[in-house]
Amino acid sequence: MKIALGQLNPTVGAFKRNAEKILQFVQRAKKQKADLIVFPELSLVGYPPMDLLDKDHFVEDNLRYLNQLAKEITGISALIGFIDRNPAAQGNAYFNAAAMISNGKIISKHYKSLLPSYDVFDETRHFEPAPQLKDIRVHQTTFAVSICEDIWNDKDFWKRRRYPIDPLPALLQSPKSGLLNISASPYALGKQKMRIAMLQAIAKKYKTPIVYVNQVGGNDQLIFDGASLALNKEGGIIAQCHDFREDLIVVDLAEELGPQHAVSQSGIEAVYRALVLGIEDYVSKCGFKKALVGLSGGVDSAVTIVLAVAALGKNNVTGVMMPSRYSTLSSLKDAKDIVKTLGIPSKTISIEPMFECFLKNLKPVFKDKIGDITEQNLQARIRGNLLMALSNQTNALVLSTGNKSEMATGYSTLYGDMSGGLAVLSDIPKTMVYELARYINRKKSIIPKNTIIKPPSAELKPNQTDQDTLPPYEQLDKMIAAYVEEHKSIAQITQMGFPRNRVEDMVTRIDQNEYKRRQAPTGLRVTHKAFGLGRRLPIAQQYREFNES
Amino acid sequence: MKIALGQLNPTVGAFKRNAEKILQFVQRAKKQKADLIVFPELSLVGYPPMDLLDKDHFVEDNLRYLNQLAKEITGISALIGFIDRNPAAQGNAYFNAAAMISNGKIISKHYKSLLPSYDVFDETRHFEPAPQLKDIRVHQTTFAVSICEDIWNDKDFWKRRRYPIDPLPALLQSPKSGLLNISASPYALGKQKMRIAMLQAIAKKYKTPIVYVNQVGGNDQLIFDGASLALNKEGGIIAQCHDFREDLIVVDLAEELGPQHAVSQSGIEAVYRALVLGIEDYVSKCGFKKALVGLSGGVDSAVTIVLAVAALGKNNVTGVMMPSRYSTLSSLKDAKDIVKTLGIPSKTISIEPMFECFLKNLKPVFKDKIGDITEQNLQARIRGNLLMALSNQTNALVLSTGNKSEMATGYSTLYGDMSGGLAVLSDIPKTMVYELARYINRKKSIIPKNTIIKPPSAELKPNQTDQDTLPPYEQLDKMIAAYVEEHKSIAQITQMGFPRNRVEDMVTRIDQNEYKRRQAPTGLRVTHKAFGLGRRLPIAQQYREFNES
Repeated sequence: MKIALGQLNPTVGAFKRNAEKILQFVQRAKKQKADLIVFPELSLVGYPPMDLLDKDHFVEDNLRYLNQLAKEITGISALIGFIDRNPAAQGNAYFNAAAMISNGKIISKHYKSLLPSYDVFDETRHFEPAPQLKDIRVHQTTFAVSICEDIWNDKDFWKRRRYPIDPLPALLQSPKSGLLNISASPYALGKQKMRIAMLQAIAKKYKTPIVYVNQVGGNDQLIFDGASLALNKEGGIIAQCHDFREDLIVVDLAEELGPQHAVSQSGIEAVYRALVLGIEDYVSKCGFKKALVGLSGGVDSAVTIVLAVAALGKNNVTGVMMPSRYSTLSSLKDAKDIVKTLGIPSKTISIEPMFECFLKNLKPVFKDKIGDITEQNLQARIRGNLLMALSNQTNALVLSTGNKSEMATGYSTLYGDMSGGLAVLSDIPKTMVYELARYINRKKSIIPKNTIIKPPSAELKPNQTDQDTLPPYEQLDKMIAAYVEEHKSIAQITQMGFPRNRVEDMVTRIDQNEYKRRQAPTGLRVTHKAFGLGRRLPIAQQYREFNES
Repeated sequence: MKIALGQLNPTVGAFKRNAEKILQFVQRAKKQKADLIVFPELSLVGYPPMDLLDKDHFVEDNLRYLNQLAKEITGISALIGFIDRNPAAQGNAYFNAAAMISNGKIISKHYKSLLPSYDVFDETRHFEPAPQLKDIRVHQTTFAVSICEDIWNDKDFWKRRRYPIDPLPALLQSPKSGLLNISASPYALGKQKMRIAMLQAIAKKYKTPIVYVNQVGGNDQLIFDGASLALNKEGGIIAQCHDFREDLIVVDLAEELGPQHAVSQSGIEAVYRALVLGIEDYVSKCGFKKALVGLSGGVDSAVTIVLAVAALGKNNVTGVMMPSRYSTLSSLKDAKDIVKTLGIPSKTISIEPMFECFLKNLKPVFKDKIGDITEQNLQARIRGNLLMALSNQTNALVLSTGNKSEMATGYSTLYGDMSGGLAVLSDIPKTMVYELARYINRKKSIIPKNTIIKPPSAELKPNQTDQDTLPPYEQLDKMIAAYVEEHKSIAQITQMGFPRNRVEDMVTRIDQNEYKRRQAPTGLRVTHKAFGLGRRLPIAQQYREFNES
């Protein structure tokens, strides 16, 4: 019994394209004599479809394509993720489903039991949990079928379980040849290791082999890493797909070792590959080929443009330098150096004439002195306007360069440096931006040394550095992680050893800048808690911790 | 037995302020000899708290304030909405709860059974459904207690029920003196009538009086209308609170008639009052006093500034005129006229010098001709920059003026006219903007007649009108409603009598402009389907209807 792991990169809603990809994978699996090919969760639809599920005709189209696919799949069985209708007169209208196709027919349908509704997940909006569980049979062999979250609620593995029920004991109560799991499990730092540990624990606990097939690809802010796995009943890894690219491998669960494709060797390598895939898929799935990056000579824009070139190719990325009276000559040189090293097209437009013009025309309106912040924001916004004008003119997507530390504290200008279609680093703390820079430079110097060692500065007023306003990034990033990712209180973060006034200042900044983040471009997610759809906070709220209020 | 309806306007997270308001209402109810005062859902917390519930200390603080409140409430019973902990080791950590306070103590706690997870609602993210139902007893009288959604799943009232269970039969199986419902039910066009019809149907079906207490006030995009009600067991209205303002009335369920406070007489009046409250609360709950509106002489900005003045007072709203070479003299006059009529401060800044300067400096970069769209967007973005500079300088919030028809079709400039903290009209179709203008002018002419009768134009190129690009608004708005609010397909909208190519063009525009809306300011919600948190669509998606793909 040979099983193919069909690690697909679908595009949300692109039924025709996804179905064609599925058929190509089916052909490849047949060539390798597979008996069954397993595709990821919602593989026909792309995950997450979000409120496209409000359209009944969207679901109808998914069923049409599924039925058409079924007819074309012969000589092999296939398990394909799709959306099924709930025939009941109450509850949500759909199931998150898997269709078992054999000999040109859908022979069984399987539904997801546990519907995630936290962080970036919204499945209770549209889906109803499985009313019953069914096995599949292929060539006299019986498998249990589960969909993603179904295997994430084991009472021995988790300290607190999200759901009152766990479908695994029922699925595996009678002996099975294995547990199939079709997933769309997004990448986050450290998740690959955790996922393997969990799969191994389940294999051992139930003494069952597991075939785990995960979606790969970027869909908006989510980056799916793939890294699909086959495990034996002792929890040993039989086979493993590549991470961050499409892959198809065929395994025999009876054998000790199957294909072991390469996955990222380190955390920062995984982050790098995730971001490259995230850019590539966002740009192409939005229908673009080209991108623009504003280059300041700083480390954020340098890392962003290196990632963009890796994703889109050097002819498709333009670096745009927009110096002002406050730009240092060394920064402009650093920006030019990276353009040269990467061999990419570039443009230089001084913002001085526009800045002068705004100041001159605002002076009579303001009467008194133009404020510091007003002046700084104006410069950033003129740059934003220039990038957007270039975008309009050349049909290239603007990639914004702000990092997570800036996005958290609001050390950024709305409609200025926050302008763009995709915020590449918005989930990367500044300290990790430096890690990425060092990773990029591991073999040869691509990012100029000066960019990495100089004190970070927005260069919006004379001799400015980030640390005039913010604590050192080593401290700030730990505080931000404690507050944003671990939901700690001011009191708890102070207990970690940070001065209370600094913690209070950081919390105030983060809370008060929610309005900026609400208007930020989509940002690629690589931590367990990114800004964006996974973190939904009111803007007009006035919470102050008990002792503060 | 006298019951007070405590129709409160809480601020999300402002426990201290909300608790003080609750105590003030308690004092007023005691003066009117009420035995029980009923407050809205999550009245201590404000609704919706969203992911503030990820912070354990937030929930802890809410419990501290509740316990403190309980001690201070004597001589009357009170039913107060709060968040309780779920002691179970699995499932979500909290309950959406109501505490019954009597003689300085919490005597019972009641939990919500039905947790909405659709449109703007996300309750399954944080709450666990009620594991059991309890009644309350006040002076030998027994009431059933329900929380908002609990009464919205009657099988006789709804064609399709969202939830497999309905708690009402269990709550009302033994005779009760009445059904209490504490709600945070946001306003939408036509919802007040529908809500009354539903409450009347339930009163009649179960032969029970109902006391329905709804939150009032704006919290971000949601506007809660209040309009709390007491009904007798025949479904007759005994008493009714004001809509769109705080109110407290005391009713005796045994009597035939209690206080009947005024509510909006027409749909457009309700929309007007909703928007005024939405502006007032967003601005003040964000800590601002003043607002800025860019005035073009068109109907959108005219209606916006009238609403802003009604919400914030004429000294707190500044009209900003930013003419260009394409602005007509009559538009500038219309803008000046409304400033004069309203008696508000204003500023005029021509965008010409900046526009010239950008064009001059972009010309060598572009080499060939500057595109039409590039030029138009530049003008809008210079205006955005000027408004934001004024905002930085004067600490006034920018109100953006784009309507729903524009937001839908992307007939707007990101970082240009879309700049601002609050999008006042983003859920108001253009045809309804005109209705609002006529409503505003119903007694005397406030918005200049010319503003209302002239063909709408963005005035970004010579002799431009909206209808160069878009179908007539009467048609467009019907198509948008069918697509966005009713989720109809191209085929279905074509069947309504619109030319297929026009429908396709409209659908393409709406889908392709998702990225702009993702970066739009929070917009006030007045229809059943507004852009924003209630409509979550992927940006990088490629769905085309079956026949198109």
